[in-house]
Amino acid sequence: MDTKIADVRVTPILIADPALLNVQGVHQPYTPRLIVEVVTEGGLVGVGETLGDSTYVNIARQLSPIVRGRSTTESNLLPALAAAGADVDVDALSSATDTAGFRGAQTEDKLRLSVISAFEVAMFDALGKATGLPVHALLGGKVRDSVEYSGYLFYKWAEHPQAGAPGDDWGAALDPAGIVEQARRFRRDCGFTSFKLKGGVFPPDEEAAAVRALAEEFPGSPLRLDPNGGWTVHTSVAVARELDGVLEYLEDPTNGTPGMAEVAAATGMPLATNMCVTRVDEIQEAFTRGAVQVVLSDHHFWGGLQRTRELAAICGAFGVGVSMHSNTHLGISLAAMTQVAATIPHIGYACDSHRPWQTDDVITAPHRFTDGRIEVTDVPGLGVELDRDQLARLHERWERMPDMRDRDDEKGMRLVDPDWRPHGSPRW
Amino acid sequence: MDTKIADVRVTPILIADPALLNVQGVHQPYTPRLIVEVVTEGGLVGVGETLGDSTYVNIARQLSPIVRGRSTTESNLLPALAAAGADVDVDALSSATDTAGFRGAQTEDKLRLSVISAFEVAMFDALGKATGLPVHALLGGKVRDSVEYSGYLFYKWAEHPQAGAPGDDWGAALDPAGIVEQARRFRRDCGFTSFKLKGGVFPPDEEAAAVRALAEEFPGSPLRLDPNGGWTVHTSVAVARELDGVLEYLEDPTNGTPGMAEVAAATGMPLATNMCVTRVDEIQEAFTRGAVQVVLSDHHFWGGLQRTRELAAICGAFGVGVSMHSNTHLGISLAAMTQVAATIPHIGYACDSHRPWQTDDVITAPHRFTDGRIEVTDVPGLGVELDRDQLARLHERWERMPDMRDRDDEKGMRLVDPDWRPHGSPRW
Ligand SMILES: [Mg+2]
Ligand SMILES: [Mg+2]
Repeated sequence: MDTKIADVRVTPILIADPALLNVQGVHQPYTPRLIVEVVTEGGLVGVGETLGDSTYVNIARQLSPIVRGRSTTESNLLPALAAAGADVDVDALSSATDTAGFRGAQTEDKLRLSVISAFEVAMFDALGKATGLPVHALLGGKVRDSVEYSGYLFYKWAEHPQAGAPGDDWGAALDPAGIVEQARRFRRDCGFTSFKLKGGVFPPDEEAAAVRALAEEFPGSPLRLDPNGGWTVHTSVAVARELDGVLEYLEDPTNGTPGMAEVAAATGMPLATNMCVTRVDEIQEAFTRGAVQVVLSDHHFWGGLQRTRELAAICGAFGVGVSMHSNTHLGISLAAMTQVAATIPHIGYACDSHRPWQTDDVITAPHRFTDGRIEVTDVPGLGVELDRDQLARLHERWERMPDMRDRDDEKGMRLVDPDWRPHGSPRW
Repeated sequence: MDTKIADVRVTPILIADPALLNVQGVHQPYTPRLIVEVVTEGGLVGVGETLGDSTYVNIARQLSPIVRGRSTTESNLLPALAAAGADVDVDALSSATDTAGFRGAQTEDKLRLSVISAFEVAMFDALGKATGLPVHALLGGKVRDSVEYSGYLFYKWAEHPQAGAPGDDWGAALDPAGIVEQARRFRRDCGFTSFKLKGGVFPPDEEAAAVRALAEEFPGSPLRLDPNGGWTVHTSVAVARELDGVLEYLEDPTNGTPGMAEVAAATGMPLATNMCVTRVDEIQEAFTRGAVQVVLSDHHFWGGLQRTRELAAICGAFGVGVSMHSNTHLGISLAAMTQVAATIPHIGYACDSHRPWQTDDVITAPHRFTDGRIEVTDVPGLGVELDRDQLARLHERWERMPDMRDRDDEKGMRLVDPDWRPHGSPRW
């Protein structure tokens, strides 16, 4: 069996991103991702994808020589190997905490896990190719043949403030009508029947009005709203009450487990999170306080596909629902999300994916959403093939644009509003 | 890849067992086990082993035709397949509850899981053979090269009361000196350095004296005592205090989560269990009440190797330790326990195994404990080969002895004490 890892390649890239708005600011024209390849002695290539900010690139570069010479069957060793051999720059740690609040509070181990995830996925992809088995079969097998995703709606500008930034044909969406129009296109192009609105951008009543407009346009469609912790407990309770019966769940209305617990207790609205439960050591408090009813798992944060399955098991034992969170990502991650989601019986919600917003990809046959779903392929490994020309092009972009190598949504916003400082107390 | 299941064979057997004493009575001369074989289209055979009482045999016989035609990569489907197609006899359910109190409270799903576990292990064994990979590699890979077991000490009679029952050369062990002698032999033969005494047989002060005698004979050796819920909370607290600093942990001193929580809170003694946490839906209460500090997982109860890994993850998230429970078992289960334990980083205690008490086995090369450990083999699958002559011999015994087909420790004791009725209130 061809499992020995002869080589590892890590390639940071920049991918184009529209001017999507959120509580921290606006997506810049490019966002960093990291592509990991493990190459077996027999020449099989497994691929993985994760967050690409400098912190992650630095860890990945340290981990690569450690993983070389090991086996694609040894993914359980990755945390110990990384802890022993991959240092995390403490400055990078604090900067990552600032600029990536969406990823929850950071620790050295969590940053390592985000890198490990790409290695683990790449190892599973290579092992799948070596054994002739799809990744899901290496995780106990799929329990469904397709995975449902939600349409991820954003308030957005028609274009980036930066001169020369890439454009898109979506236009602006800055009010309920614009959001409904965006959802209509998603329904038409991808067949999504669940929708999530990224909130925290406008005053809560405007965002609630957008949700109501969606409910009117798409009766019966599950709807979610995610202001990324931009509200006080008081505001969160008010919006939760107003949208009772309209929302499937409310996502991270307020920051931190104690506040989430207050909102949940006061309203009975199911609360979802990808912010207050992002590490194993945050689970106990959140679950015992009843702060979250749905955990949005993210195989990038949590350290890979096996850790995602474990997280789902933990949620199951405590009666907490499971779905999936997404950052800006490409097809390798979509394949990985789909393969692991296919193996988890109690994923009871459409998963999130930014993928429809991306025009770039690094695989030869980018996925298409049909009826809001991605088919679970039975092709060996992840079922994707790396497009080396695209990888080279996007890496060349990374080489050329050092100021885009760390995601910073505030920086983009300060081009328009020089006083923009979103951190500190909740906005509403 | 040769993964399609062409045939399934389930073979109930009876294995010889010494007259080991516990709170419910005494092991009878034979105990039932069930051997499951899955045979692929290419003729690969995967093996699994589980509890063999009639209830389990009935479920396994229903599950076999359902699994035939599926793939060895589809173990995640087993719970749904079994729930849809394998009925559980309700009378059998209540009888299983009575006679197998050591396995915790029973439900239909739990009985199914105990059967599923043998199918899952057999599927992993066959998949390992098909891919050329050891089972641990199909679970993310081993994180250690050997797994430590404890010496499982029992009060015992020199022989069974039944005429014609098989004998053994261990002699009686009915007091501290007898227990120490037994431990010495285990140390000599198998190299065990941790010891567990099955208690609940004699008044607690006698059992505490035996533990003290072990501590004197084997200074520094981790020691445990397990009266299988035979004590009141009051007695449990008293013994826990008396053996503070002597025991590594106290196992199931009293029955039920509320009582365990009381003992834990009153004493600070770490409490282990294989009785009050034996199903996913028992976890939340036990963990939030702090009732148990160590869960003794059992891949038979919990539904297989993947579920065991998930249980370990749940424990990890709540700061609860993990080790392994054992019923009377043979080499297939020892191989399965060793393979899965090898993949769990935070198994922090020597696992339990009855295996040294068994003279029968159904594999061609029964394991040997060296330095109290079993080596984690890298041979494809479980690394064991079925001994068909032995399997036939033990099945023929099962055919011949219908009155031994359901484990019933009370029945054995009633041959000596006709009024023996251990159920109801705690004994001490
Ligand atoms: Mg979110
Ligand atoms: Mg026990």
